[in-house]
Amino acid sequence: MAEQVTLPDPAMPDPPDFDGWTCPMPLRDHPNVVMGHGGGGQMSAELIEHLFVPAFANPVLGGLTDSAVFTLGDARLAFSTDSFVVQPLFFPGGSIGHLAVNGTVNDLAMSGAQAAYLSCGFILEEGVELSVVGRIAADLGGAAELAGVTIATGDTKVVDAGHGDGVYINTAGVGLVPAGVDIRPQRAAPGDVVLVSGQIGVHGIAIMSVREGISFGTEVVSDCAPLNGLVAAMLAVTNDLHVLRDPTRGGVATSLNEIAKAAGVGIELTESALPVPEAVANACSFLGLDPLYVANEGKLLAIVAREDGDAVLAGMRAHPLGADAAVIGECVAAHPGMVVTKTAFGATRVVDTPIGEQLPRIC
Amino acid sequence: MAEQVTLPDPAMPDPPDFDGWTCPMPLRDHPNVVMGHGGGGQMSAELIEHLFVPAFANPVLGGLTDSAVFTLGDARLAFSTDSFVVQPLFFPGGSIGHLAVNGTVNDLAMSGAQAAYLSCGFILEEGVELSVVGRIAADLGGAAELAGVTIATGDTKVVDAGHGDGVYINTAGVGLVPAGVDIRPQRAAPGDVVLVSGQIGVHGIAIMSVREGISFGTEVVSDCAPLNGLVAAMLAVTNDLHVLRDPTRGGVATSLNEIAKAAGVGIELTESALPVPEAVANACSFLGLDPLYVANEGKLLAIVAREDGDAVLAGMRAHPLGADAAVIGECVAAHPGMVVTKTAFGATRVVDTPIGEQLPRIC
Repeated sequence: MAEQVTLPDPAMPDPPDFDGWTCPMPLRDHPNVVMGHGGGGQMSAELIEHLFVPAFANPVLGGLTDSAVFTLGDARLAFSTDSFVVQPLFFPGGSIGHLAVNGTVNDLAMSGAQAAYLSCGFILEEGVELSVVGRIAADLGGAAELAGVTIATGDTKVVDAGHGDGVYINTAGVGLVPAGVDIRPQRAAPGDVVLVSGQIGVHGIAIMSVREGISFGTEVVSDCAPLNGLVAAMLAVTNDLHVLRDPTRGGVATSLNEIAKAAGVGIELTESALPVPEAVANACSFLGLDPLYVANEGKLLAIVAREDGDAVLAGMRAHPLGADAAVIGECVAAHPGMVVTKTAFGATRVVDTPIGEQLPRIC
Repeated sequence: MAEQVTLPDPAMPDPPDFDGWTCPMPLRDHPNVVMGHGGGGQMSAELIEHLFVPAFANPVLGGLTDSAVFTLGDARLAFSTDSFVVQPLFFPGGSIGHLAVNGTVNDLAMSGAQAAYLSCGFILEEGVELSVVGRIAADLGGAAELAGVTIATGDTKVVDAGHGDGVYINTAGVGLVPAGVDIRPQRAAPGDVVLVSGQIGVHGIAIMSVREGISFGTEVVSDCAPLNGLVAAMLAVTNDLHVLRDPTRGGVATSLNEIAKAAGVGIELTESALPVPEAVANACSFLGLDPLYVANEGKLLAIVAREDGDAVLAGMRAHPLGADAAVIGECVAAHPGMVVTKTAFGATRVVDTPIGEQLPRIC
């Protein structure tokens, strides 16, 4: 039968037919993917809104929250995914293994859900040391134990040397959303107060310090942590939390802009109330960055009714991961969809969504 | 404050402490990841068994099935994940987008679950054309619609040009397992019959033909397809299906070896009963491959009680994706954990698990 085989075949299969396919994106003069498309800012939003949402069109995805919430059987579930491509793989305060667990645990927590089960997909680069993979797996296992979540299913692929960057990880997670809990960006309302659970900008600066070999006086250690326990403590105060969001890529500014747009409210921040640690302030001053745009991996933003503000703040401060919690602003009826900050001198400046990301690949 | 900044810092953070960490793997003389670790064969199994399972230690993961099954709230769920790194991204019969949906839909179906919701994580390479991403997204959306599953949540990361291969995709999925259904490898029992839903080896040869530019007479088109409908048709015959498995990486041989080991049974195949299409036979003969080891993306293996065999076979043949279904062997009490095939001349040969994969990156 072998005589029927011809090698090589000059007629390769037709390339996919791109005729008639026009890119639905505001192209910004580049028809190709750039780093900014993964930065969590405007370009990421455009990719999702113009390219993915129409392709996958369905009402669940349209919500654009950190996790999808739906009912399956008799269970009300949250479901979320994140891929992790951080460089370097190990950094002060953690590794890609810790991030991969906490990132998805936190996305679920932002719906009020307790993460129950995680999936874990590895893409390994040919040639990476098994000891590195083993260390990362141990970090994943340890982080899962700390967060109280079970890694239930996994997958491993290997790509050729030179592709990949040692290890990429995807995790997805499912968890139960407690009855009576309805946490989503659309619920922010004028009069609500805006809280943050602690000091901002730490993770991004920690990554930058190792990647660029820059020291900022004190070593900055990533804040990577699972927030499900803190959220449980907040839900014990009131299950009427309006909005939760973990300000990762794009930082506090991007998360609050997304909320303001989704809810059609304005958000007014008090600059002096923002908890920025000195080392982060130093680093940002040196690098020309704004801490509002720097990534966090163990912080959350909460928006609650004004009358619940004090009690929720007290509940957060009673938890180790909320000890530095603060009220940083409020939702207003003015300038819907826009975030502003009031400076100590009474001036107001607009806090816009960044186009891309100040520092890519921080998670 | 900027005067506190020192650049560069000679004291980079300590590298992770690998002292005391000894690789638990049978090393086969290489302490690094090789392509075979992603091939679905013995090396993949070793990586899972010796490195991941101890790190993630929990009873759910220990099952080593295509999907995890657990109860959350009142729902009995299946949960599964797969990453897709296929090269090329587009091939005869489909694309990475079709694979990403069908791969996870099929893993869930192998527990008897109907996939309900998928997550989708993209890792894009800087510089890849947005039209390529858009075409893949459209393929994902189309495949999801065909399979009746909702893409509920997603994530996009971008890695530097030269890393990645255009597009990697991870999908995870959740679905309900119907009451009374208990499908898992451990249920294979002596006397059970082994069925396959159609012609084998097609996907792997389709990928090889484009990657190597080889033609085998007839163009071989991938069998990539969602199997949830076929499984539903089989469950309509009896919900007492013992084992289902989609023989992807490593092919029929690897899947049956895993089942034989998990259940402690022998499996005896009848070589003449294996449905191998002529083009695949030609290609394998030319390339020195065995179709039993070549990947499939739209076929399933089923193991059922002998008395159910005829009815299940009839149910499969009545479905478009099972038209070529066949009984290919049986489970026996002899040689537990081993798969053998009987040739037309009455000889018996052992069908072992491959070490790595004949052709990597087929999914």
